[in-house]
Amino acid sequence: MPTAPRPGTKTDRLVRSLRDRIAARALGPGDRMPSIRGLAAQMQVSPSTVVEAYDRLTAEGLLQPRRGAGFFVTRAAQLPPLRVAAMEPTRPRDLDPFWVSRQSLDPQPGALQPGCGWMPGDWLPEAAMRSALRALARAETSVLTDYAPARGCPRLRRLLLARCAEEHLALTPDQLMLTASASQAMDLICRLLLRPGDTVLVDDPGYFNFHALLRSHQVRVVGLPRTPEGPDLAAFEAALAQGPRLYLTNSALHNPTGGTLSPQIAQRLLTLAAGHPLTIVEDETFADLEPEPSVRLAVLDGLERVLRIGGFSKTLSASVRCGYIAGRADWIEALTDLQVATSFGGPSPVATEVLRQVLAQGGYRRHLAQLHRRLARARRQAVAQLAPLGITPWVLPRGGFYLWTRFPEGCDTGEVARAAAARNVILAPGNVFSPGRTAGRFMRFNVTQMSDPAVLSALHGAMT
Amino acid sequence: MPTAPRPGTKTDRLVRSLRDRIAARALGPGDRMPSIRGLAAQMQVSPSTVVEAYDRLTAEGLLQPRRGAGFFVTRAAQLPPLRVAAMEPTRPRDLDPFWVSRQSLDPQPGALQPGCGWMPGDWLPEAAMRSALRALARAETSVLTDYAPARGCPRLRRLLLARCAEEHLALTPDQLMLTASASQAMDLICRLLLRPGDTVLVDDPGYFNFHALLRSHQVRVVGLPRTPEGPDLAAFEAALAQGPRLYLTNSALHNPTGGTLSPQIAQRLLTLAAGHPLTIVEDETFADLEPEPSVRLAVLDGLERVLRIGGFSKTLSASVRCGYIAGRADWIEALTDLQVATSFGGPSPVATEVLRQVLAQGGYRRHLAQLHRRLARARRQAVAQLAPLGITPWVLPRGGFYLWTRFPEGCDTGEVARAAAARNVILAPGNVFSPGRTAGRFMRFNVTQMSDPAVLSALHGAMT
Repeated sequence: MPTAPRPGTKTDRLVRSLRDRIAARALGPGDRMPSIRGLAAQMQVSPSTVVEAYDRLTAEGLLQPRRGAGFFVTRAAQLPPLRVAAMEPTRPRDLDPFWVSRQSLDPQPGALQPGCGWMPGDWLPEAAMRSALRALARAETSVLTDYAPARGCPRLRRLLLARCAEEHLALTPDQLMLTASASQAMDLICRLLLRPGDTVLVDDPGYFNFHALLRSHQVRVVGLPRTPEGPDLAAFEAALAQGPRLYLTNSALHNPTGGTLSPQIAQRLLTLAAGHPLTIVEDETFADLEPEPSVRLAVLDGLERVLRIGGFSKTLSASVRCGYIAGRADWIEALTDLQVATSFGGPSPVATEVLRQVLAQGGYRRHLAQLHRRLARARRQAVAQLAPLGITPWVLPRGGFYLWTRFPEGCDTGEVARAAAARNVILAPGNVFSPGRTAGRFMRFNVTQMSDPAVLSALHGAMT
Repeated sequence: MPTAPRPGTKTDRLVRSLRDRIAARALGPGDRMPSIRGLAAQMQVSPSTVVEAYDRLTAEGLLQPRRGAGFFVTRAAQLPPLRVAAMEPTRPRDLDPFWVSRQSLDPQPGALQPGCGWMPGDWLPEAAMRSALRALARAETSVLTDYAPARGCPRLRRLLLARCAEEHLALTPDQLMLTASASQAMDLICRLLLRPGDTVLVDDPGYFNFHALLRSHQVRVVGLPRTPEGPDLAAFEAALAQGPRLYLTNSALHNPTGGTLSPQIAQRLLTLAAGHPLTIVEDETFADLEPEPSVRLAVLDGLERVLRIGGFSKTLSASVRCGYIAGRADWIEALTDLQVATSFGGPSPVATEVLRQVLAQGGYRRHLAQLHRRLARARRQAVAQLAPLGITPWVLPRGGFYLWTRFPEGCDTGEVARAAAARNVILAPGNVFSPGRTAGRFMRFNVTQMSDPAVLSALHGAMT
């Protein structure tokens, strides 16, 4: 991958650096590659290493050998590579959207993760999960062995439709589909609605994995400065002139700021969007962590131009994956075909049956009520822990486990994250969330991952 | 969707037909749409229906209103739509690759499914699944609540690496990743290696969902006639001149024919491919249904230009979804980033733990041994059942549950499937599998779904 050298053979590293030079257009289509001897001398590797690297790049379709004339960059190499990580070759890996994801998903043994995006297992309804699994072991055979219907478990879909109805969002069954995850829901929508080169609006700061996903779709990303009450409307209005196709946002408990959309901004935003071919994707991932419900674009709009997506990884289990999309029936039908083509069938019946059982139990609402109180305590504690370091919250969230904080004058949170990583503490530096790189003094903390005193001491050490 | 009218409001139908006319270039970019009154009269709908249809197409970015001048087709409409199902607007739905998938995944109550791609639950290791779920209910918390590592459960990966080693395919851990399904494995590879307009080789006949997937990637599909021993090598050699990027194939128990690649064709195919920038994806989905192992391109090639994909939906459970990719370490690393961007993390730990437990039990190998004998009986019975109707197997498969059959002179299996569907029996007509539409006299049967006598009587009725 096109970043600072990582473990790998000499050939791996040479292939990566050549790939980067091609991606960065330093070597353009039709260009003759350096001679094998010449490059070997230049890169201080053996000629056989260069030969192997050229062979690999040929196998990737980036180079073409011409008998007697050497290797040439192909026209195919001109097309932007779909390799997500190859799309910003000059970017340091630790500000790459993948850095926090990969570090959090594959931590070193004993790593502490105040930068990660989920709660420890003992904050989740573990007992309800276990009883659901025991019940599942007695379920009828088809649940254990068959593919899911193309739109996923009907009983879980009915349950989600009922929850929408509680919000005065009356949907027909053909307006809701289940997906393998909220991330996959977002990806399916991008595949349906976006073409390479389209303009897409996101919040700045915003969820870094959306930025990674959008890069893989080769679209132009425009960041809207996020105020505590929602996106900056002047920036939104200006961006509309660029004909954006999508706007991806969280209304409730926005990631990373924890802010919540105000009714006034919600209303003005929909009014400004009227008449523009803009679709809004409202991500409900954190909705169940809200103590009281707040305004939703999907509800105000009635799902005309808004698509609602969500999942259960943050509130119930990240191990049992399932997401959903609610929207216009004709879009759901096309998205269902896309899901069949790319995943064949809806999400695992084993997974959806576990979720359905946990959600259907009254215990889940009691669990949420306790969780809201516990999270409020943890947020207060985190604010108190960080204050002595001169780290202050940008806004006090109404719920959830994120705290978006400002560091003291002169602090570069990217450097702090690098230094903390050396102490095996994984932080989430602000610019990972900021397409405009305007969050160098900010950091997202997960208040449920800060109980170990080593977090604060590592943070303190990394700052000094 | 752009096919024969389906349930939906007048507006839905009007939107679909306009979308098709735009997709079919009957209405080109920059064209002025008919006046609202004019179209309303022409289509015999109310003007308000036309207004709503134009508004929807505007929201989709296909139309643009110009004040006073009416509605115009946008330049964006020129780009091929990513809507999979919109890519062959003139194709009858019942020969669309989605038809069999959607009919099989969402059957009418009481439907019989000799055309579907999986076995009934009682052919699968149900007892082992149930005991694995009971064990899972007692598993450590992290298995129930956390995200998977980016490449999926290490213990299941080790188990798969060991199985590869048994085939003399020695892999390092960084050469194998788990995915949400074999379909998703294929999709991730397409995203990594393909660009719109690339040429991709498939078997003709071949797995229809691969064709659907490739359409969604907007690539040129070239079908290689399939002989009982593998792809036609003359056609393969000729196709190489077109610079194909990928070749997707099953070596063992090819879908739909049940044929198996011969060592000679495997060897010649790899020799012909040498020096071409072609990557071969070998799909192992049916491998465990082979009584004795046959030759593999991945093993002969040592995973230099071959990627191995597979899953467990056919042999173990289609409800617990998981697939895998084995290949070059640098590709697996890039594919892992793509999986993080599109799914965040590897496949569900709950799913992979169930699979690991079932696969690790000695009982699984005993189950397979019994299954091989039971399938052999079922294949013989199906051949005997079909003979009186003049339906003969194209080849006698060494294993698996598919039977690829030739119908009597003059039979159009598409028509037979349509007539059988009216009797709520879902068949898999040959041309669904044939990019070249050369299989109009062929039909794929699933021998595990033919025990109900109603299947044969419906088939007989549909043929006469």
